[in-house]
Amino acid sequence: MSKEIPYKIYLKEEELPRYWYNVRADMKTDHCPILNPQTLKPVTVEDLEPVFCTELAKQELNATDRFIEIPEEVRNFYKMYRPGPLVRAHFLEKALGTPAKIFYKFEGNNTSGSHKLNSAIAQAYYAKEQGLTSLTTETGAGQWGTALAMACGFFGLNLKVYMVKCSAMQKPYRKAVIETYGAQVIPSPSDTTEVGRRMLAMNPDSSGSLGTAISEAVEVAVSTEGTRYVLGSVLNQVLLHQTIIGQEAKMALEKYDCYPDIVIGCAGGGSNLGGLMAPFMADRLAGKHAPHFIAVEPASCPSLTRGKFAYDYCDTGKVTPLAKMYTLGSGFIPSPNHSGGLRYHGMSPILSQLYHDGYLDEARAVEQTSVFEAAKLFAKVEGTLPAPESSHAIRVAIDEALKCKETGEAKTILFGLTGTGYFDLAAYMSYNAGTMSDYIPTDEDLQKGFEGIPKLEGIQ
Amino acid sequence: MSKEIPYKIYLKEEELPRYWYNVRADMKTDHCPILNPQTLKPVTVEDLEPVFCTELAKQELNATDRFIEIPEEVRNFYKMYRPGPLVRAHFLEKALGTPAKIFYKFEGNNTSGSHKLNSAIAQAYYAKEQGLTSLTTETGAGQWGTALAMACGFFGLNLKVYMVKCSAMQKPYRKAVIETYGAQVIPSPSDTTEVGRRMLAMNPDSSGSLGTAISEAVEVAVSTEGTRYVLGSVLNQVLLHQTIIGQEAKMALEKYDCYPDIVIGCAGGGSNLGGLMAPFMADRLAGKHAPHFIAVEPASCPSLTRGKFAYDYCDTGKVTPLAKMYTLGSGFIPSPNHSGGLRYHGMSPILSQLYHDGYLDEARAVEQTSVFEAAKLFAKVEGTLPAPESSHAIRVAIDEALKCKETGEAKTILFGLTGTGYFDLAAYMSYNAGTMSDYIPTDEDLQKGFEGIPKLEGIQ
Repeated sequence: MSKEIPYKIYLKEEELPRYWYNVRADMKTDHCPILNPQTLKPVTVEDLEPVFCTELAKQELNATDRFIEIPEEVRNFYKMYRPGPLVRAHFLEKALGTPAKIFYKFEGNNTSGSHKLNSAIAQAYYAKEQGLTSLTTETGAGQWGTALAMACGFFGLNLKVYMVKCSAMQKPYRKAVIETYGAQVIPSPSDTTEVGRRMLAMNPDSSGSLGTAISEAVEVAVSTEGTRYVLGSVLNQVLLHQTIIGQEAKMALEKYDCYPDIVIGCAGGGSNLGGLMAPFMADRLAGKHAPHFIAVEPASCPSLTRGKFAYDYCDTGKVTPLAKMYTLGSGFIPSPNHSGGLRYHGMSPILSQLYHDGYLDEARAVEQTSVFEAAKLFAKVEGTLPAPESSHAIRVAIDEALKCKETGEAKTILFGLTGTGYFDLAAYMSYNAGTMSDYIPTDEDLQKGFEGIPKLEGIQ
Repeated sequence: MSKEIPYKIYLKEEELPRYWYNVRADMKTDHCPILNPQTLKPVTVEDLEPVFCTELAKQELNATDRFIEIPEEVRNFYKMYRPGPLVRAHFLEKALGTPAKIFYKFEGNNTSGSHKLNSAIAQAYYAKEQGLTSLTTETGAGQWGTALAMACGFFGLNLKVYMVKCSAMQKPYRKAVIETYGAQVIPSPSDTTEVGRRMLAMNPDSSGSLGTAISEAVEVAVSTEGTRYVLGSVLNQVLLHQTIIGQEAKMALEKYDCYPDIVIGCAGGGSNLGGLMAPFMADRLAGKHAPHFIAVEPASCPSLTRGKFAYDYCDTGKVTPLAKMYTLGSGFIPSPNHSGGLRYHGMSPILSQLYHDGYLDEARAVEQTSVFEAAKLFAKVEGTLPAPESSHAIRVAIDEALKCKETGEAKTILFGLTGTGYFDLAAYMSYNAGTMSDYIPTDEDLQKGFEGIPKLEGIQ
């Protein structure tokens, strides 16, 4: 019997979703408004326009339209690498000896190596449509920078990527990919901005930080004609674009005649998990049968499991608006961890609200050595070398499948395999050599981060 | 209209070919027999058994069975990453402004990053079936080592990969991938073999060569219980396994209602091009309408375009049997070139014979800077960052499409996109920086190589 079940299902191109799904339109309680840090009033499209493309600013604040049409040019670009496969993890099930059915939605079949391209191409499209010529952004590990470079290369937009200096130095190949697609990589802090020069004057040897890189990218965007700033996670617009993941997964699961009992995703800024679970969350919010949702985060950066639900800055440099979210404090410095994409102090306001209200059922923090153990097993039996970020979801999917083995339940588990680990081999080398260690912040470490959360009279 | 044409076609899993196609069964003139270098008699299965798995030795010498059934376990493994997509290069056509229809068969959607996995899993399967416990191989650039490590990891076989020392040093991440799948990487020359120790005694600082690595891997295979040696190209068995590429491409093209006018593949050892063109060659050999076939090789290592059709050793160390093929001489050292997979002095005996007899219509040598120019354009418009090897085929596909632009012909062009360039970024960096140079061997350079071709009384 099991032999007749396909190993994977690719939807046809004509089945590619035509709309992104805006989960805010269905939420019982909308997330608290994003605040202008000067006025402490809810931000408006006008507030955001100097920084973001107008259409994206509108998407950011759109709480009412359930469906946003995917522009045809974006949909055509999607067809280069989408629909992505939904894979039945036959070999993993067999290796675990579990009665559970494990499925994963794979987003790594494109050169950016991850789901980031889904939002990058949309953001570049709106910039092009608005007649802009240039974009700026920051990148830490480099996935987002790569995805946006591909998108800007495609639409003929200039792109400046402020890349955290130590990362640019350690990962020359990431820099090389970005440059191959025609973007400019500027190690941050740099002498191209005021904030960069200030940082360099204070410390000429600074290895940089994501906070500084964001500040540099924003400064260039707001001070340069025809230029805007874009971001690869956390924002509502990004989560919106990523709902294509969940929609495809749901349609493909229907072809398997399956509905998930558990949906698992890694959560850094939250856009991947938010996108994967969105259409299933729609079922939950409509009062229908729905899966148990699990967000997986690194034990070293536990914003959902140990953070505070509070208004905070989205960046370390405190130049962004304030968002009500689960946060470790914008000054929290996560310990060295190989999942660069999950080292974020906060969490998407949408996911934060859903978690606060009990719709996102559970968050689980896992340690990186156990994550890499799961990653290696997965690579061996399912072929694909997973990204460390994605492997957080693999870890918990395996744990849930092993529970099923104990109880004899044949649950259907869906997880998001957000990307591949081809640029993360230093991490695998460290794990293979047995030199990787775990780190869990103490309550005191967290307390220091919490002290940086702004005290807002009458709001917080 | 063009919007209704799919950007890519994935066959269904049940359409995955059930047989490999043995083009030798249809060749008008079989290739000259492989000779035992001691006796100069055609090798037998018994001659090959100490080195190769028995079933693979049989496949190597099988000139009569048109179809070889793909074992079910291999076919199931294929389902992890196959059928591979056939892509209509809409965006490339548009960028070139050509009336040509360009299609490419993409083989890079797996962690080995190339088509090599198609043969690696088959070879590992037969080893497992024979009750062997271990395999040995060599790797230069690392793609083949990665593919075989994945295959051996899957079937639980031990694997020793002799990796050319300078490559192991320069590409620690390739080594890391191989080790992550559980294989052992031994920089060659090593002190684990007699030939390695001999090389080290002569030159302790030797950076190694493919020839030495092959000799080490073969020595370990023939001297260790339950162990055999495997190779990733050149051999008939490898070309046989790669025919899955062409069969899928042909079936998918039929769904597009297309038949190619031109089929283009890069050619190093020849297994990729051989596999891609095999089912179309069957048409040609049956006297039906068939495409124009073009083999593309680097100008720095021009075995088909400037080599001799002669009996020669398949390795630099002269430990292998003799094959009649286009060769630059087993001692020919190609100049530094970033396409490691194409730096081979010889060519598959099957392809050599087909080229000699005029069935493989044309061979074209291209220079690497023009190859990288094509690669960058392709990456920008079609998304995927191509491997340097594959980019040789892209270069010629673009050239043919531009000819169509001049003539107004709407030819159908099919080329093989064998893999991705994610581990070739040093090459892209060199091209981006403008420091990449071309090299074409002089007639004198070639003459030196030709002098190494053995003089075989009454045979050569």
